Amino acid sequence: MYTLYYAPGSANLLVHLALLEIGAPHELKRVDLDKGEQRSAAYLAINPNGVVPTLMVDGAPHGEAAALAMLLAERHAEAALAPAAGSAQRGDYLQWMFYLANSLQPLFRQWFYPGDQLPAAADTVQEAARIGIEKCWSHVDARLAAHGPYMLGEQLSVVDLYVLMLMRWSRNMPRPATEWPQLAALATRLKARASWKQVCAAEGLTEWV
Amino acid sequence: MYTLYYAPGSANLLVHLALLEIGAPHELKRVDLDKGEQRSAAYLAINPNGVVPTLMVDGAPHGEAAALAMLLAERHAEAALAPAAGSAQRGDYLQWMFYLANSLQPLFRQWFYPGDQLPAAADTVQEAARIGIEKCWSHVDARLAAHGPYMLGEQLSVVDLYVLMLMRWSRNMPRPATEWPQLAALATRLKARASWKQVCAAEGLTEWV
Repeated sequence: MYTLYYAPGSANLLVHLALLEIGAPHELKRVDLDKGEQRSAAYLAINPNGVVPTLMVDGAPHGEAAALAMLLAERHAEAALAPAAGSAQRGDYLQWMFYLANSLQPLFRQWFYPGDQLPAAADTVQEAARIGIEKCWSHVDARLAAHGPYMLGEQLSVVDLYVLMLMRWSRNMPRPATEWPQLAALATRLKARASWKQVCAAEGLTEWV
Repeated sequence: MYTLYYAPGSANLLVHLALLEIGAPHELKRVDLDKGEQRSAAYLAINPNGVVPTLMVDGAPHGEAAALAMLLAERHAEAALAPAAGSAQRGDYLQWMFYLANSLQPLFRQWFYPGDQLPAAADTVQEAARIGIEKCWSHVDARLAAHGPYMLGEQLSVVDLYVLMLMRWSRNMPRPATEWPQLAALATRLKARASWKQVCAAEGLTEWV
């Protein structure tokens, strides 16, 4: 049994989708970000950075959404959500997980919270983030065009779940990710899965469902 | 035999250190960033983003430094540079690799290339990056204080090599990482290893060696 600390539509979405695809029993605990529960002493004790998600694994708290998705994929190899260690696709798998974590996702932090470091510079930081995010979508779209229909080819993996979550985050941007044709096709395919309907219902999502 | 495309002191340093710690035979190919070789057709063919490092693995090119370090650690399990899948420390390992990739390393991109998206806003972007980087060092230092001497405890891992590379990148910042006591101690410990002397010689590094 896993316990996932989440806020609707936040980075937990990737981990939640992985749990549902695996069919792993899990309990959800909502963290109310508007009330600042992520900065409560109780939450900081399990997540010193005060962010969601946190996943309790064998009684120990762990963070970082992409890391948790990889951990779940390897703990439940039967779900085939990641190429096995030693397989030919392992390099591509790790590469794309880190590309999304290192290049694309950090730009969303700046898009959503552009004034975190320097409030007076928020507009500038946000505009720089938008430009960077659009470059990344072009790169991911090109990957799908060359090697799709999924990010690693014929087989769904947690890389696709990660892309889907980030795509959803772009829904209110000037140019949402669905304006790239291969990305739009990927989203349509993934949104048809039971895991998507389940995650939207469980987190109470109403936009881009 | 691996082939590592590198530029002295760039993100390849993590991969290069891992190869040396493993003792894996490898060939080095320098990419001259000042001459723009990273944007040559030949290089873009193996690394569409035009960045270092690229590592040839079984004849196929792969990128993303942190992904390559993880890939090497699992291909050479005998070097014990990462907790094995299924071990109790696996969650911490993945979590810290992604924390560094997702929170700390992207800020260095903005520190070093602050005008990439909006040249007029370079000073602002760089100052925001400095503040963020210093917050991250405090977080990593606290981890070492609580769970050191290495990032995962008693055993060296690629997480430490990753931290060391990022620490070196901070050497000319207003507050370099060595001003945090646990980080300074980690750097001293790692710089005493043969792999560090070898990597500095092979890449021709002269600062912070």
